[in-house]
Amino acid sequence: MSRPTLALIGATGAVGTVMRDIVSTRDDVWGEIRLVASPRSAGKVLRVRGEDVVVRALAPEVFDGVDIAIFDVPDEVSAEWVPIAAQRGAVVIDKSGTFRMDPDVPLVVPEVNPGDARDRPRNIISTPNCTTLSMMAAMGALHAEYGLRELVVASYQAVSGSGVAGSARLYDEIEALAGDRSIGQTAGDVRKALANKLPDESPFPAPVAFNVVPWAGSYKDGGWASEELKLRNESRKILGIPDLKVSATCVRVPVITTHSLAVHARFEREITVADAHRVLEAAPTVVLMDDPANGVFPTPADVVGTDPTYVGRVRQAVDFPNTLDLFVCGDNLRKGAALNAAEIAELVATEF
Amino acid sequence: MSRPTLALIGATGAVGTVMRDIVSTRDDVWGEIRLVASPRSAGKVLRVRGEDVVVRALAPEVFDGVDIAIFDVPDEVSAEWVPIAAQRGAVVIDKSGTFRMDPDVPLVVPEVNPGDARDRPRNIISTPNCTTLSMMAAMGALHAEYGLRELVVASYQAVSGSGVAGSARLYDEIEALAGDRSIGQTAGDVRKALANKLPDESPFPAPVAFNVVPWAGSYKDGGWASEELKLRNESRKILGIPDLKVSATCVRVPVITTHSLAVHARFEREITVADAHRVLEAAPTVVLMDDPANGVFPTPADVVGTDPTYVGRVRQAVDFPNTLDLFVCGDNLRKGAALNAAEIAELVATEF
Repeated sequence: MSRPTLALIGATGAVGTVMRDIVSTRDDVWGEIRLVASPRSAGKVLRVRGEDVVVRALAPEVFDGVDIAIFDVPDEVSAEWVPIAAQRGAVVIDKSGTFRMDPDVPLVVPEVNPGDARDRPRNIISTPNCTTLSMMAAMGALHAEYGLRELVVASYQAVSGSGVAGSARLYDEIEALAGDRSIGQTAGDVRKALANKLPDESPFPAPVAFNVVPWAGSYKDGGWASEELKLRNESRKILGIPDLKVSATCVRVPVITTHSLAVHARFEREITVADAHRVLEAAPTVVLMDDPANGVFPTPADVVGTDPTYVGRVRQAVDFPNTLDLFVCGDNLRKGAALNAAEIAELVATEF
Repeated sequence: MSRPTLALIGATGAVGTVMRDIVSTRDDVWGEIRLVASPRSAGKVLRVRGEDVVVRALAPEVFDGVDIAIFDVPDEVSAEWVPIAAQRGAVVIDKSGTFRMDPDVPLVVPEVNPGDARDRPRNIISTPNCTTLSMMAAMGALHAEYGLRELVVASYQAVSGSGVAGSARLYDEIEALAGDRSIGQTAGDVRKALANKLPDESPFPAPVAFNVVPWAGSYKDGGWASEELKLRNESRKILGIPDLKVSATCVRVPVITTHSLAVHARFEREITVADAHRVLEAAPTVVLMDDPANGVFPTPADVVGTDPTYVGRVRQAVDFPNTLDLFVCGDNLRKGAALNAAEIAELVATEF
């Protein structure tokens, strides 16, 4: 086995920053690591594995000699540049939504469907949306034993899902509103207070401090938000259940990092809380925190910055057969993005 | 028709404050209005209908001559004092959980089951939990035409649901954390920052600023939180559907006032988005805000301090027959508490 050359495209963004940390702290299987970003960021010097690396501008030549390229860039940048990298011989692991539903591109969560990563006719592997990923390790483990049939999901999505600008906006809004104890008492008062202190432009369609915003992504037919349909379609593809029934409502909450999901899951076979505990405790990347009588359940504040998928509040539905209700948390920048991509890259690296 | 005497028990709390505002601004059908609270608050002077009223300490005599008494006090205080008031001849409207499931006590939402208020063998009428109430006007209207069969609900509950102390805690936490842009980046950092600045005691079992907390109420068998079971049992009783299937996950979010709910609702009959829009637009206390392509959906910041139930994000479930997904917001101190109690009191007042 030789040490493949890795390129990180989008090295300066929210996910890119976590990615540099992740490749610096996990088992080092890499030869050269190249950092690539937009021409605006080219020339910056960033640390990876304790070494200074000069960021290169995205161009066809940066892929020369690259074995594996991880892309974390906007959809339209992926659409243009991923095929170029793949044609130049790199196995591309793409974080964007562009190729996820392409039948010739596997969509991989290493704990769930690692074998799919080997069948990649376009030389591209996609990594799922962060909201889907937040629950996949847990739901994959339960599905393997009990056969998942239906999912009803409501999300509590962190602002860093909208990148560095998302986190900055929540910090800005909190600073603008802190100390005013009349905030949150009258319709429109949050908007009014912000209008005096912050520019209107925001990554979110409504104030996110002292508020929740039932919208994530772009508008789709039938009133769906793109993030809600991704959760449906990607879950079906990753789990290999083409007829899985899914309904999701995606809501942004004033949390910096870590997505949470309230999940109502019906299975083919009868399943108890004890059954679910046994499966989840045995799943290597899942942490079970489920003793609510003693205040034990996961919350974003205790999950952020860590790798596992956390599960708590496991309950047998009172009125629905073979059904569990549960609460899942996962760091949307780590397992939800950079970590999953790094794990796929490590899977591919074993082929070299 | 004569003007009945009204007593407000718990006049100084979070709901009591809103209640004084509500009886001061709605059509005035009342004779005397008496304010009652714990001995600690007795002697305080508070404004009602533009007049100063001295708060009286809770005692059997304060109910002499009272026609209707609205109680907003803890469960154990209701358990002791509601029967005393009812025996002294007052019709009691009780906000606590104590009597809600008593078959001899009607549980009333005036838009949904006003007739139930007349059949009150114990002289007591209960008003529902704020989370249940936040969706009841909307779900009642849809049920009346399409026959509700199943509800899967995830809540986004405001901190004022835990009273004045709940709001104070969120303001305190926000002030303690504002300005520190490392908050929300590392597991435990919110707890650590708060430990240096605030006392540990909180109405909530985890930090609520920059966080969400999947717990509301007390521990019940099977890992359920009391609030989740209330939502099930109270919805069945109010809607008159004893076999309604319900699963709920209740989550506290950093919002001061206004509960939101993501609702997945299956009906007996086929229902489209257009059907739901027609029903909800015709419902007098429901406001439909549903044009997400143009950024129109309800959020707590625009709902707080107002009376209606707001509905948006109405979607026909892709994979589930006869099923809608929707997002509902309601001010938990107004329709969720004080307003519903005042509306029941006004219903009863028409009998005088």
